[in-house]
Amino acid sequence: MPSTESAALKAHYRSITDRLAANPEMGLAAMRSIFEELAVQAAEPEDVTYAEVDTEEVRGLWCVPAGAPADKAILYTHGGGFVGNTVHSHRKVAGHLAKAAGVRAFVLDYRLAPEHPFPAQIDDAVAAHQWLHAQGFSGADLAVAGDSAGGNLAISSVLKLRDLGEELPAAIVTVSPWLDMELVGKTLESNADNDALISLGVVTMMSQMYLGSDGSATDGLANPLHADFSGIPPLHITVSEAEALLSDSERLAERAGQAGVDVELRTVPDQQHVFTFMAGRAPEADAAIAAAAAWLRPHLAVN
Amino acid sequence: MPSTESAALKAHYRSITDRLAANPEMGLAAMRSIFEELAVQAAEPEDVTYAEVDTEEVRGLWCVPAGAPADKAILYTHGGGFVGNTVHSHRKVAGHLAKAAGVRAFVLDYRLAPEHPFPAQIDDAVAAHQWLHAQGFSGADLAVAGDSAGGNLAISSVLKLRDLGEELPAAIVTVSPWLDMELVGKTLESNADNDALISLGVVTMMSQMYLGSDGSATDGLANPLHADFSGIPPLHITVSEAEALLSDSERLAERAGQAGVDVELRTVPDQQHVFTFMAGRAPEADAAIAAAAAWLRPHLAVN
Repeated sequence: MPSTESAALKAHYRSITDRLAANPEMGLAAMRSIFEELAVQAAEPEDVTYAEVDTEEVRGLWCVPAGAPADKAILYTHGGGFVGNTVHSHRKVAGHLAKAAGVRAFVLDYRLAPEHPFPAQIDDAVAAHQWLHAQGFSGADLAVAGDSAGGNLAISSVLKLRDLGEELPAAIVTVSPWLDMELVGKTLESNADNDALISLGVVTMMSQMYLGSDGSATDGLANPLHADFSGIPPLHITVSEAEALLSDSERLAERAGQAGVDVELRTVPDQQHVFTFMAGRAPEADAAIAAAAAWLRPHLAVN
Repeated sequence: MPSTESAALKAHYRSITDRLAANPEMGLAAMRSIFEELAVQAAEPEDVTYAEVDTEEVRGLWCVPAGAPADKAILYTHGGGFVGNTVHSHRKVAGHLAKAAGVRAFVLDYRLAPEHPFPAQIDDAVAAHQWLHAQGFSGADLAVAGDSAGGNLAISSVLKLRDLGEELPAAIVTVSPWLDMELVGKTLESNADNDALISLGVVTMMSQMYLGSDGSATDGLANPLHADFSGIPPLHITVSEAEALLSDSERLAERAGQAGVDVELRTVPDQQHVFTFMAGRAPEADAAIAAAAAWLRPHLAVN
């Protein structure tokens, strides 16, 4: 049984779904506003400070846990289907992961679809890696992390860096990654009754906006389930067994593993999509963040 | 001329107004979602940490600037017409004021109308004062601050404390306070063209929700323009000359002054309602917060 606290996320997701269904013509601004409300769910992580970055190369938000070393960092790419959410809605989730891992996190403010379709998001994430390198972080000093569409972006930006011959981060951490732009995952249907947020209708709309007129649902950068994973750093995946996107994680683990990637897939029963939104409130979220952080620390050589 | 940065708030307010007008039947949840977006405007104040409080007596969020003394505090009551907004939308604004004043701020999570009409908000704020007293803060260690409806609440809760014979805070800081539940202020009409958020329609709706079936628009606790101000601590008011609610501040300054309250009214040209939302981005917002904080420091005996 999910904890009472984690059940609050299901209720919140249901309210989102109900409002979208009640007013399907609400438009992008209203939809983004509703998704942005997820900001309220995570508890404030204590002893974390924040600092905005707004330069020509990159925009985003540093989340700095007290005592974190200056020379290691997580690049966090937030979820929201590539069409919504911001550094604000994901600040606390990233802050909790940063605190658990003992390193600062940079939450990237990347451009959103449909105004900026694929591959603008990957371009922005690659630019963020390059900016971090210019700030003195080597690949070995960096990890990437992301949830949902941001989990896709965490992976696809590393695939792109590899293709460009650039330094790769030490590790990739994903939570409920959304990869399958073909929308053929079996759990989209088999877990539909439990998943209060993700439906075929929602991911169809988001994939159309992300791919735009030129993107392909089988391009390995848009849909890493079609990617060549050779040379990709160790990968941690957290997902719930009850999610509509479970099969994205299962196929990712299988394909990356077949390519020789060091993969750890951690599945959790009875939770919702990106259940780490309940960080600081629900035991399942805190346990998931603690497990991902414990896996990550040695890859970043953090004590 | 307003700064480019402060003009962004006008554009944001206009988008809120447009969306409310386009869908007047959207309902409370959608309206609250739209107002909550104001969270994005202020920049992150650096070197401030946060800690949630959730006890039987009180709920809210501490904003703690680095180096702030443990024995002084601001109780911050957020705006939102008594019907919307949260500690989340106002966290950064309160954090900027706390940092400028050199003291921690407690942002109160109070109950909202119409589910909880007047005087539930005042009861919650009085309970927060009492909780702070029990935590060891004397009246002299405390100030109250609030914007818009939260400016009303900052004042009305002190009026209530006085009526109860309890210790009063050392000072009251308000930004664009909304007091006039009769909706008779002259600038509601004369500044209507400039004010992108506040219209007679909006404040009519909000006052009806706040007052509920039992409240009166001339009750001094609901509408401090009808209050007896005797014995009230020094009061700082920041408002723009171009706001629809300018006359609330002008009448407040006049009536409190007539009752012997030490009042400072600071008016600023060409700004929007609660222009301190642009803290860390617009020079007008930063100057207003700096001025209010400079006024506040001696009242709290902060160096």
